[in-house]
Amino acid sequence: METPRIARPRTVGRPCSVASALALVGEKWALLAVREILLGNRRFDAIARNTGAPRDILTTRLRALEAAGILERRPYQDRPPRFEYHLTPPGRALQPVLQTLAAWGDRWVEAPPPVVFRHEDHALDAVLICRECGEEVAPGSVRPHRHAPGWSAAGPLAQ
Amino acid sequence: METPRIARPRTVGRPCSVASALALVGEKWALLAVREILLGNRRFDAIARNTGAPRDILTTRLRALEAAGILERRPYQDRPPRFEYHLTPPGRALQPVLQTLAAWGDRWVEAPPPVVFRHEDHALDAVLICRECGEEVAPGSVRPHRHAPGWSAAGPLAQ
Repeated sequence: METPRIARPRTVGRPCSVASALALVGEKWALLAVREILLGNRRFDAIARNTGAPRDILTTRLRALEAAGILERRPYQDRPPRFEYHLTPPGRALQPVLQTLAAWGDRWVEAPPPVVFRHEDHALDAVLICRECGEEVAPGSVRPHRHAPGWSAAGPLAQ
Repeated sequence: METPRIARPRTVGRPCSVASALALVGEKWALLAVREILLGNRRFDAIARNTGAPRDILTTRLRALEAAGILERRPYQDRPPRFEYHLTPPGRALQPVLQTLAAWGDRWVEAPPPVVFRHEDHALDAVLICRECGEEVAPGSVRPHRHAPGWSAAGPLAQ
């Protein structure tokens, strides 16, 4: 197993990979910036225009994503210095997160879907499955098996 | 196709189901509250303790999720009135979003995973696939095919 590439952020409450992921990317402008970079829009002005994020907040979010190792800045011009944003491997690995959010939004919020995706040469029909059995990870089919030390499903264990 | 159950939120920038989803659940306490309710923790005090969310912010988030139709409050006690939070069908449908975030956190941030999940009777190994071809939705294998009116991958089209 490869070593994780991202430093564990500080979180509160239940120790949980969802909480850690959200401590890094759990803010809408952060994920929408990743969306734009995945679409090939690597420059600040394009990311700001296409997300609609306030420029000062976007600057803060991009710096935090860079500090976490989710994206990197590469110079494309010297005078004045200008940078493009590129996703690192953990940054590119956020694509399934965005596709899962898009599938939820397409199903429950939007009709028709504002953006239609192709997967290779056909229409994308994204679904989360379990590689072990090949079945869909349906609501209610998953349960926690082992919790973090000191925790149960109900909460912190009495000391 | 069933009618979407959730009113489309106001968004800025590129029309996109990710942006709509994040307008509703794109804040870490909102998704962590959904996590706790999926774990069976339906009461405010347990949700506050297990997420670590500040109580005033959590109150606001839970009200917004209720107004959006992602969860509902049900009374469990009359005097004083007390409520439990239950997920609606769109709320339960957020489970794949949480599992995808957990898979990303397990892979890139945490080692070992703080929580281990079972899917039916075996260890969960969640992966996003395309139902059309059965292949994994790997980074780079997906591209937008049709954009919202007035938009391209690069941004808004000139009028």
